[in-house]
This record gives sequence, structure tokens and C-alpha cells, in this order.
Amino acid sequence: MAARPSGTSGIITLLTDFGLEDEYGGVVKGVILTINPKALIVDLSHQVPPGDVARAGRLLAWAWGYFPKGTIHVVVVDPGVGSDRKILCLTHQGHLFLAPDNGVLSFLLAGLRRPKLFEVSNRRYALKKISHTFHGRDLFAPAAAHLSLGVSPRELGPPVKGLVRLPVDRFSRKKRGVLIGQVIHIDRFGNAVSNLPGELCSGGTVGVWAKGRPIRGIVKSYAAVPAGRALATIGSHDLLEIAVRDGSAAQRLRLRIGDRVEVR
Amino acid sequence: MAARPSGTSGIITLLTDFGLEDEYGGVVKGVILTINPKALIVDLSHQVPPGDVARAGRLLAWAWGYFPKGTIHVVVVDPGVGSDRKILCLTHQGHLFLAPDNGVLSFLLAGLRRPKLFEVSNRRYALKKISHTFHGRDLFAPAAAHLSLGVSPRELGPPVKGLVRLPVDRFSRKKRGVLIGQVIHIDRFGNAVSNLPGELCSGGTVGVWAKGRPIRGIVKSYAAVPAGRALATIGSHDLLEIAVRDGSAAQRLRLRIGDRVEVR
Amino acid sequence: MAARPSGTSGIITLLTDFGLEDEYGGVVKGVILTINPKALIVDLSHQVPPGDVARAGRLLAWAWGYFPKGTIHVVVVDPGVGSDRKILCLTHQGHLFLAPDNGVLSFLLAGLRRPKLFEVSNRRYALKKISHTFHGRDLFAPAAAHLSLGVSPRELGPPVKGLVRLPVDRFSRKKRGVLIGQVIHIDRFGNAVSNLPGELCSGGTVGVWAKGRPIRGIVKSYAAVPAGRALATIGSHDLLEIAVRDGSAAQRLRLRIGDRVEVR
Repeated sequence: MAARPSGTSGIITLLTDFGLEDEYGGVVKGVILTINPKALIVDLSHQVPPGDVARAGRLLAWAWGYFPKGTIHVVVVDPGVGSDRKILCLTHQGHLFLAPDNGVLSFLLAGLRRPKLFEVSNRRYALKKISHTFHGRDLFAPAAAHLSLGVSPRELGPPVKGLVRLPVDRFSRKKRGVLIGQVIHIDRFGNAVSNLPGELCSGGTVGVWAKGRPIRGIVKSYAAVPAGRALATIGSHDLLEIAVRDGSAAQRLRLRIGDRVEVR
Repeated sequence: MAARPSGTSGIITLLTDFGLEDEYGGVVKGVILTINPKALIVDLSHQVPPGDVARAGRLLAWAWGYFPKGTIHVVVVDPGVGSDRKILCLTHQGHLFLAPDNGVLSFLLAGLRRPKLFEVSNRRYALKKISHTFHGRDLFAPAAAHLSLGVSPRELGPPVKGLVRLPVDRFSRKKRGVLIGQVIHIDRFGNAVSNLPGELCSGGTVGVWAKGRPIRGIVKSYAAVPAGRALATIGSHDLLEIAVRDGSAAQRLRLRIGDRVEVR
Repeated sequence: MAARPSGTSGIITLLTDFGLEDEYGGVVKGVILTINPKALIVDLSHQVPPGDVARAGRLLAWAWGYFPKGTIHVVVVDPGVGSDRKILCLTHQGHLFLAPDNGVLSFLLAGLRRPKLFEVSNRRYALKKISHTFHGRDLFAPAAAHLSLGVSPRELGPPVKGLVRLPVDRFSRKKRGVLIGQVIHIDRFGNAVSNLPGELCSGGTVGVWAKGRPIRGIVKSYAAVPAGRALATIGSHDLLEIAVRDGSAAQRLRLRIGDRVEVR
């Protein structure tokens, strides 16, 4: 591949709630490739449930760091499309992010006080005709393509000071090392990911309770217990995770997002 | 990337009913990349319901124009595979299309009287062994790959005069500006897209009825009404669309393809 | 694209049970592209049902041969992740395969007695931090990326003699040309693929029975019978397949994997 503009990897990731049964995702790619035929587009997921900003925010927070510096991450989970919500361009640790200002970037930023943000408002980097219902195609895609060609974030629009933040669910530490958190994500396998950091759950743990129910744990991996058995482990997100070997913890233990997880 | 054959973008889009749980789509890509390792393959969708030619035709009609000229669009929604239906190569406004002659190209062509068509029959551009059940792999994929290498459509086979056309649902205009159309597409979000052109539905609209039920509208975007409320808007296809803010119009209003939509 | 290391096509295929709703597949791609930005990643499928090693093995066996030589095929259907099961690198007919040693490679190898295998154990070609639950990201992805850069399989680890083999369902030949096999795969269309080789089912077939029920057959293609009618045909895998024209044989005839298929 030819030399790339300094600072960009040429990679554009897409994270949307478009699903895969319509033409929406394909159209976004067409717009990007029309502007930058050398862009390398990677789907993070298009299967975010419609409008589920929190889930998108977590997937993004867990994924972006595995891409090379200079990657442009585009998030279009945007129930407020057509309202006056801003579109943001965030530069963070050598990566670029394009997302609606609806809190989806909160999870990635966590405690970061002063993120470097720009508003995406320069119509020079948009399609000529802008709909009120599909900014993914008309605004996000062309902006991402231009960024991948070396356009600087500050050319997209003026700096922005703050952004919408969603409440990030905090866990709490009680006396005698008791940790109380909650389920924040259910994955395809039915694993229930909690917000309890793995490094706090290791040595000397007495027990784990999910929704009040005692769980065997903390074991090293799913394979450490017999098939069908519930377990707690430190999962791939470095968070305490409730799983069932060769089964679904969400189904078997009826776990849902928000359910209490306790470690003693 | 190296210089490309004149006239081709190197991009091949795929629109099929293969689904994503089998190896079919991957195999088509393998065949293409074996012939042209530099082809850039973009999935439009593989989630067309099995044999739903009309849905595929609409997705294609809505998507192709967002890709660069010289793109090759491959449609394999082909319930007649193995019959004597032809495979067509269409050249249209600088794009190339490969599709079974089953009407899937009608929507894209709309009123165009004399499309430029060729039959895909030259076995030189096919796999050596041709099955009766998977022409996507054995005929469409190699033909697309060869086109992307610069093979001319006329090398694929002789010119063809006509093609199968599906009835395109027309809306009707009654007295006093009343428009009567129908739902032609339900998208992932449950938005019900009608065949009423947006530009006819703008100024001075008194009301919109979907399946006889009055709908608030026409508003600028989904965000213009409170959550859970039904609305009508001009969607991203420039067609009148019935939606429910943060919900599914198809579910809430029980809208299906073919249901009547009326604008006064 | 620049010159590639001798022997590799630069293509990496992915076959997993990650699904598409989480960030797992995207993260694997990020890891690969961080190591080899020129890798061309192709999804075979991420929709293998969780832990369904046999299905993955069949999809792989049916797909790999359609890719160019030098392709690296990565299979992460790995219910034993975190246990002491090995990760294998297989070289086979000019292709490379990375898979857990859980039998998933059996189908591809069929009767092959002495496959050329290496254990993937050299941590130089792994991520620095290795989880116990996501080897796809931490071990398979970096190993695949390094192979695509020209690292030799033997650098990944020592040669291995044997591998786990799953019982491959054999059909049996009875007197008077009777063949007894079984359904081994149901595809998206509801076609029931048997393990009876097409070349044994051609001339002079009297009849086909699926689960004891007589089927019209053997016809050349789905289109040879009227809509809604059951049929038997030699499908795209060169195996006898039970189908329903414009319908699902699995649903209509209640066929499941393991059901008996008989040809006389």
C-alpha cells in the first residue's frame, strides 16, 4: 500500500446499531471508499441493539486499544439524529474517534477530565446533501474518510470543552474487603461481565455472589469446572465475570444488566 | 495499491441471501481473491431473507450510487439457480452489476427503457466445475473477479435485449393533492418506508395515514417527537417513512409491506 | 500491494463462534492489523453456535480449498480455552491452519495419516499479556499475523505428532447398492446436507428416503420441482442434499443432524 498520511493508520472502525439486514452499513463504506479508496474498514459491530448507547460505549472502550495508533473509530449509535446534539471528534492516545455527543464516549474516557474534542461542523467534509435521519452516511462517513486522508481534527470544526457523560456504574468497597458491583454486559456466550476489576478479586477471595446466589470461584478459566457448572473468573476485559461452562450464565442464572455481584 | 485497470474501482460489493452462519459468503470471497488478490470486497448484506428478490432489488437500488464509479455489484438472491434463467451483466452509469435475470435489477432501472445488458455465459470466466446449486461461487464470483481485472462485459457473453421486470409498486395521485402509496420496506429499526417520494410530501401536508391510522407528521427527524410517539418523516431514501421514536413502527403500528400509506 | 513474503497470500480467514454482537471479532482484527497492517482478513463465519466444534470443522473443510495457496485459516471455536489443550498450526496443501487441538481439524484431514503439525507455544509470537479466556485475541491473532509476515510454522513451536480426532460419521454400503448415511449439516436455507457422496448417488438411483420418508429425487437443482416440493439433489458440497424448493427441508421434514438418509 502506498505511503499513508502521517499519523493515520488508514484503518477506520465502525460501531453501529444498523444491523446487517439493510444497506446502511454498506452505504457508509461506499461513501468512505469514494473519498478514500485506500481506507481499510473494519467492522467492530453493527449489532448494537437500536439506540443502546451504553452497550456501544462499553464495546468501544474495550476494543479501541487493540488497534494501531492512528486508527479512526466511528460510532453511529445515534437515537438523537436530527436533533441539535453535536457530532464530536475526540483525539485520545493517538487514536481518533467520531461519535454523537450522547455519552457514548464516556466509558472510554472514564475519569479523564479534559479530553481533546472538536465539533464536526465543517460542511466541506460532509456529503452535499445532508438528510435528517442518516448522519452516519452524510456526516460521519465523509468526515472519517477525510481524517484518514490526513485532514486534521481541527479542520472539522471548533474545539469543544465538555461532552455528555453517562453515569459510569461504580462499584463500592465495604469493610473486610467486600466488593459490591453489578453486571454491566452480557456477551454472546451468556457470560455476565461485572464492573469489578480483576486485580481486586484475586488473592484470598472467600466467595462470589451473583444476584444473591453463591458462585464457585474464582477459577482461572471456564475449563476449570465441569460442563454446566457456574463459575466466576477474571475474563478477557480484566473484569470479574460470571459464566457457566459450555452454557449461558445469563440464561441459567437469569442474570441481567444491573444485577448485583458481590465478592468477599 | 497498484494501478487499476481503467474503468474499474477494484471494489466488488456482495448482496446475497446466504446468511452468515454457513461458509457460502466466505467461499465466494475466496474465489474472487484467488483470481484477483487486489479486489476490495464489501458486503452490502448477506441477510436478505431466502429468495426475497424484491427486498434485494430495493437494497441494491438504494446502495449502489454511494460507491465509486467502476464498482462491480454482485447480487446472488437466486431461487431459480440451476434453471435456465440467465445471469446478466448490466452496465449502468459507470457501474457494473452481475445478477440473475429474475427481476432483481428492476428497482434500480425503474423506468429505463433500454438498459445495456450482456449474458454471462462464457465459461472461460467461470470455475472449471459448475454446480447446479451454487452459481454464486461457480459463476458470479469468477465473473466479478475477471471484471475487476479489466475484462469487458462483452467478453462475458452476448448482448441481451430485455430482462425480467418485477412490477414496481406505483403510488397514485388523487384529487386535492391526496397521495396513496404503500409500505415497501421495513428496516432493522422497524421504520416503515413507503413508496411516496419525499419531494411530493413536503409543503402544505395536512396529514398522514398509515393503514388508516392518523400519524403525526411530517416532522424533520425522529428526534422531533417524544419517545414512543409515531411520526412520519422524509427518511434517508428520500421517501416518506413511518417511524416510532426510539421504537419500532412495524411492531407498534403492525405495519407490513403492502400496507396503505396516505398523504393529504 | 507491496511484495509479500514468499509462500503467503496475505489472506487470513477467521472462523469463530464469537458472534457479531460483541467486540471480540473486531479486536482480533485489530491485533492482526497492528502486527501486519497489510493482512487481508476475510470472515468465514463468526456465527458458529458456541462451542460447536463439529460444525466449525465442516465449514472449514468445505471452504479452505477455495482460497489461494498461502492463506492462513484461523479457527477459534474453543470451549476448552484456558485448559491444557494445545493450539496447533497445521500446514496442508500449501495452506496454513491455526486451531485448538479439539478435533476441529479432523474433518479437513479426513483419512490423512500424518498431518504436518506444530504446537503454537512460542510466546514471542503472542501478546505480552495472555488471558485465560480469550486466546483468539492473545495467541491466535498474533500467531496468524506473524505467519502472514513470513514467520515459519516451525518457529511457532515444536512439531507435534498426533491431534485430537472427532469421529467422522461414515456412511455404509449395503447389498444391491443401498447407501445409508445421515444428515451432517443444516444450512441457512434449511437444506439438509448428508454425508453421502454425490458420485455414488447418480446413475440408476431408485429412490431417496430421509428419516424413512420417500423424497423425490435425485434432481439436478432446486428449480427442477415445483415450489414447496421436497427433493434430493447433489448440492454444492458434492454431497446428497435434501431440500424443499423455496422452503426449508429442515422445518418441513423436521430433519436434524444425525437423521438417517437412505439411497437405493
